[in-house]
Amino acid sequence: MIIDIHGHYTTEPQKLLSFRDKQLAGLADHMRKPATSELGITDEELTKSVEPQLKLQRERGSDLTIFSPRAAGMAHHVGTEATGIEWTRMSNDLIHRICTLLPSNFAPVGQLPQHPGVPPKNCIPELERLAKLGFVGVNLNPDPAGGYWTDPPLTDKWWYPLYEKLAELEMTAMIHVTSSCNPVFHYTGAHYINGDTTAFMQLLQGNLFKDFPTLKFVIPHGGGAVPFHWGRYRGLAQEMKKPLLKDHLLNNVFFDTCVYHQPGIDCMAKVIPVDNILFASELLGAVKGVDPETGHNYDDTKRYIDKLPISDSDKKKIFEGNARRVYPRLDKRLKKS
Amino acid sequence: MIIDIHGHYTTEPQKLLSFRDKQLAGLADHMRKPATSELGITDEELTKSVEPQLKLQRERGSDLTIFSPRAAGMAHHVGTEATGIEWTRMSNDLIHRICTLLPSNFAPVGQLPQHPGVPPKNCIPELERLAKLGFVGVNLNPDPAGGYWTDPPLTDKWWYPLYEKLAELEMTAMIHVTSSCNPVFHYTGAHYINGDTTAFMQLLQGNLFKDFPTLKFVIPHGGGAVPFHWGRYRGLAQEMKKPLLKDHLLNNVFFDTCVYHQPGIDCMAKVIPVDNILFASELLGAVKGVDPETGHNYDDTKRYIDKLPISDSDKKKIFEGNARRVYPRLDKRLKKS
Repeated sequence: MIIDIHGHYTTEPQKLLSFRDKQLAGLADHMRKPATSELGITDEELTKSVEPQLKLQRERGSDLTIFSPRAAGMAHHVGTEATGIEWTRMSNDLIHRICTLLPSNFAPVGQLPQHPGVPPKNCIPELERLAKLGFVGVNLNPDPAGGYWTDPPLTDKWWYPLYEKLAELEMTAMIHVTSSCNPVFHYTGAHYINGDTTAFMQLLQGNLFKDFPTLKFVIPHGGGAVPFHWGRYRGLAQEMKKPLLKDHLLNNVFFDTCVYHQPGIDCMAKVIPVDNILFASELLGAVKGVDPETGHNYDDTKRYIDKLPISDSDKKKIFEGNARRVYPRLDKRLKKS
Repeated sequence: MIIDIHGHYTTEPQKLLSFRDKQLAGLADHMRKPATSELGITDEELTKSVEPQLKLQRERGSDLTIFSPRAAGMAHHVGTEATGIEWTRMSNDLIHRICTLLPSNFAPVGQLPQHPGVPPKNCIPELERLAKLGFVGVNLNPDPAGGYWTDPPLTDKWWYPLYEKLAELEMTAMIHVTSSCNPVFHYTGAHYINGDTTAFMQLLQGNLFKDFPTLKFVIPHGGGAVPFHWGRYRGLAQEMKKPLLKDHLLNNVFFDTCVYHQPGIDCMAKVIPVDNILFASELLGAVKGVDPETGHNYDDTKRYIDKLPISDSDKKKIFEGNARRVYPRLDKRLKKS
């Protein structure tokens, strides 16, 4: 079985996007507020909307995608906490419906109603609701300010109530920023990658997993710059008298394979233990074109893993075993089905 | 000849640091202002202060270091524009003196008196002074706000007057942030690497080198996350209908080799053309320890280049030829000496 742990719902029906327009327009002119949060999207429309993802699963040979709302669509910095709560709930409900309609193709991950300057513990009601609905994890945004980075580091006690609940519910968190409202940061080209690198370094500086030994974080996009600078991070940990990264972080921190060329994946596989690498391609995601150097899509990351000089059992870990271990709720879901 | 293009003066005499304390204390209490900007540092003290660098040059086999003030010491966000101008001038003067005392070991690169929210054109007088003193380049900070990123992207017209002068004087700029006053960003572990990645993506989005075809930027720390995500950047450029990165950026943008392990350097050498890679180790810099996996210092980057499966003539480019081409003022300086 091949599990792609990083897919976003980037093919949403127009009705959802129109609602969001009206919702945000309503902040400026309450006459423009949407009359209802009932979108009137049918099951048929939902199923049709994910046909592109299903087609790519078939063509590229993956079975199941861990599926969450569009990352840039979370936009925690936009609007108010209240609009964010409503928007989050609606976005998550669509994911839930799709994963219920197509349970062998998709497993649900939710967004949280984070808002800059607002304590993350406010997200707990939605987190509990998601757990009841069978979600296997959430996306956790380390910068709800969308490129202005005004909230505390992930190791700050500010985040602890949320971590307690994540641990209690066995919900896995992917550390994923959203869009950037800071013109210096292109979202997929800078902000995403910086978010990954920054989160890892915060965790390296702290001792978060002493307090939360079962918490599991996935850092997407191959961990940002981390594998490329693995020597730097090993050296910084050493200077800070931290344990080896393996012991300090790698029981709790995992990387996905959203790195869109062979030399990058090769570098990652050389330095990151195979138990910490989870197959992912971020479909339909950041980079959609065909690489003229290979004739294949940049984000067809399965090809890069297939070519790694590692054993079949190690590849099986990357494609399936690690995902089932890092997402315990996914494993239970799969065993039930 | 082996040229290390990235060294900072991190062994400054205590007298300089005491001046800076008094200068900044003077902002709160003018009674504490330093009485004079004459530091009273002798030539002997300066020569002695760089003995650690000279020892490493001998031990590791490099000849010349391009030498600039401590990167984290620039701290453009600290104090006022006026304190920054004074501090910059003094820091640059020490570099000038060291490079005059030891011209076969060091070539000077300066810092600029940038300040958040202040037009970069205000740096032109110091830039002109540096050119007259024989400096071969400057460090250009894409985020004078020290981790809050409140100034415009590098492609904005805001920066153009400075670029005109850089081009006119043939001064090469290393894009290098300074310390971070934002607690989310560790300086060497996150802010430096994010600064590199962000700058590259800004240049990718823009068309700066159409306006400044001779401008030369060096992105340090191996280009941040860029080589590791080279497929992502090629794909993003393609989606944005930009030319191939080779044509769009690589006549003007170069990467150093401050990547502190073999797999990182291997990845870089696979994707970045050899003409765009410049040898550097950032002595005495970010990561000082001995790598227990190799028994050698993390930042002994020459060993990684030595092991690359490339021709001797390509290695000569990385160690010398590219530096002389990318820093035309260095080349002239070396030919004169």
